Amino acid sequence: LRSPEPAAAPAAAGAREPAVEPLFLRACRGQSVERTPIWIMRQAGRYLPEYRALRARADFWTACTTPELACQITLQPVDRLGVDAAILFSDILVPLPGMGVPVTFDPGPQIDAPVRDRARIEALRTPDAREATPFVLEAVRLIRRELAGRVPLIGFAGAPFTMATYLVEGGTSKSQAAIRGLLFADPEAASLLLHKCARTIRSYLLEQIRAGAQAAMLFDTWAGILAPDDFARFALPHARAVFAELALQVPEVPRIYYAADCAGRLAQVGQLEATVVGVDWRTDLRLARLGLGPEMILQGNLDPAVLLAPPPRIEAKAREVLRAAGWLEEGGPSQRHVFNLGHGILPETPPEHALFLVETVRRLTSAAAR
Amino acid sequence: LRSPEPAAAPAAAGAREPAVEPLFLRACRGQSVERTPIWIMRQAGRYLPEYRALRARADFWTACTTPELACQITLQPVDRLGVDAAILFSDILVPLPGMGVPVTFDPGPQIDAPVRDRARIEALRTPDAREATPFVLEAVRLIRRELAGRVPLIGFAGAPFTMATYLVEGGTSKSQAAIRGLLFADPEAASLLLHKCARTIRSYLLEQIRAGAQAAMLFDTWAGILAPDDFARFALPHARAVFAELALQVPEVPRIYYAADCAGRLAQVGQLEATVVGVDWRTDLRLARLGLGPEMILQGNLDPAVLLAPPPRIEAKAREVLRAAGWLEEGGPSQRHVFNLGHGILPETPPEHALFLVETVRRLTSAAAR
Repeated sequence: LRSPEPAAAPAAAGAREPAVEPLFLRACRGQSVERTPIWIMRQAGRYLPEYRALRARADFWTACTTPELACQITLQPVDRLGVDAAILFSDILVPLPGMGVPVTFDPGPQIDAPVRDRARIEALRTPDAREATPFVLEAVRLIRRELAGRVPLIGFAGAPFTMATYLVEGGTSKSQAAIRGLLFADPEAASLLLHKCARTIRSYLLEQIRAGAQAAMLFDTWAGILAPDDFARFALPHARAVFAELALQVPEVPRIYYAADCAGRLAQVGQLEATVVGVDWRTDLRLARLGLGPEMILQGNLDPAVLLAPPPRIEAKAREVLRAAGWLEEGGPSQRHVFNLGHGILPETPPEHALFLVETVRRLTSAAAR
Repeated sequence: LRSPEPAAAPAAAGAREPAVEPLFLRACRGQSVERTPIWIMRQAGRYLPEYRALRARADFWTACTTPELACQITLQPVDRLGVDAAILFSDILVPLPGMGVPVTFDPGPQIDAPVRDRARIEALRTPDAREATPFVLEAVRLIRRELAGRVPLIGFAGAPFTMATYLVEGGTSKSQAAIRGLLFADPEAASLLLHKCARTIRSYLLEQIRAGAQAAMLFDTWAGILAPDDFARFALPHARAVFAELALQVPEVPRIYYAADCAGRLAQVGQLEATVVGVDWRTDLRLARLGLGPEMILQGNLDPAVLLAPPPRIEAKAREVLRAAGWLEEGGPSQRHVFNLGHGILPETPPEHALFLVETVRRLTSAAAR
């Protein structure tokens, strides 16, 4: 399974990938890789001093809706860490105003009028992303130009169930009682809401891809609150509908699904038409492999809190993740694995620890190191 | 597997159990049952108007530390719902002041000086429960007298890892970064902390049992944030040490472990020396049965949000849980199952929905109904 190409030397930040397809995209397609690619969820974020400096001049919403700022932030971790993929800086709630639901950040998301009854659900729009969020598409184009082929760009959206949860809860909620109450008390209205979220997200991701995104990721942050049967009933069909449309229209673009707390729902997650499944740190990658089958590309899953520990412990825990992913110390990189954290990087993470992780995974799995 | 005794008629609230061992305790011991017992996590709580009325006169801490009030609250759901077990009204943080850490509730728990370094950990006391929390033991004695054999009383404590999480985080936290940071950065200090929590909890549960508690439950609310390997390293040995001591000293008393988000850690949970495992609603009971083996008593696991829906939907979802637990509609109750929610009952639950659930499980699984 080794790559026939000569092994790439550990790349300095900003080094160009070879003219063949980028490492990250090859891994996402199940093609042979010469080392394990790595990127970090929420890699453009508050743990970076350059992010905090920019945010001191622009609030979160301004940063999300101003292409030049979103582009600058997106590139910060690529420059500093040398990760193998960039991910659009944005927020999963960016499509909401286009659906007719204003949202503010203070600092957590706040929807003043949560969508909790059928009349409000029926009034929701399902906008075309070119009209509702042109600034996101402009940001994607700008980022691709600025990246100039260094690493691929991942576009993303919230998964339908997660977007619906925010719409119903009105923000981050502890018990998610409102969305679950709606599912059980009025499943028809809930299904209409989920259908509208899925339509909005489908356009949003397709347009990101047309603007230049090279992979499409759905974050299903809240699906972990559902029992497996309810996940199958309410979350799965709508996320699958989004991915099925992408598979039809842009089959070559990898589809990444991030499943929080997926250990109990692997059979369902396996039906999503995803090409890559991001696994949270509570789910052993061996269990995920068993549940998702030998073909699935797994992404993850170091506990983000490990990056608060000193470097020797970070290396030990990174080795555990690599071993769980099938990495053999003597045998080169594991295939069908993209290294990542199992959740977003914590704001209190020292940036040098993130850099150490990237360099460690690169070093350990690089064919050149053998 | 059917009970030789005549089937009990659906008991009215307050009806006495027969002179044989109470249904709940027989179920916990894997003995034959004539119907599926049911109780509800957080059954004495804010969803009950009589609880809110009492709490209008006494704050939460006063209610926890005044035996007469704790007794009144404990009995409220027994009187109203006719559940098959009472559970001590208290809070998992009640032992903290005795360890030297004051805690306030406003309304969530708040520790003004979280325990985050080795010096603070070394200074923690591991008190004898008779000195630190005599009011809890008095409440247990009072409740047993007032119950007068109607249903058994469950005593409880937080599991060591969950207690440690509160001590380190200083309250309810979103990311639990502080406790995980401590585990990874200073595992020796973390182990000392967990050891001290386990010693405190061991005395606390043993004394509750000596005062009259007929089952002992450990709530591991926060263990769900750990990767399986870290659960095995940090949470499991300390919870097992508590249960091992109980198994030695009071082997006849059922040991119940509530595992939040346990789908990815079933193999580890199976090693706890628990006789009963409470399963959260995200974990299908069939998966829990596979992972925990044919002998384990399973408790759970209806999604609490189901109780926000109308009764016909509650019945349909209760049937799903019963089926997953091995209930055959024509064949009497499933054995080795105690019905419960998969998490605490939500404060917004209509009490009549809770009553409907109790009566439905009773009716559906009663041998008399066939």
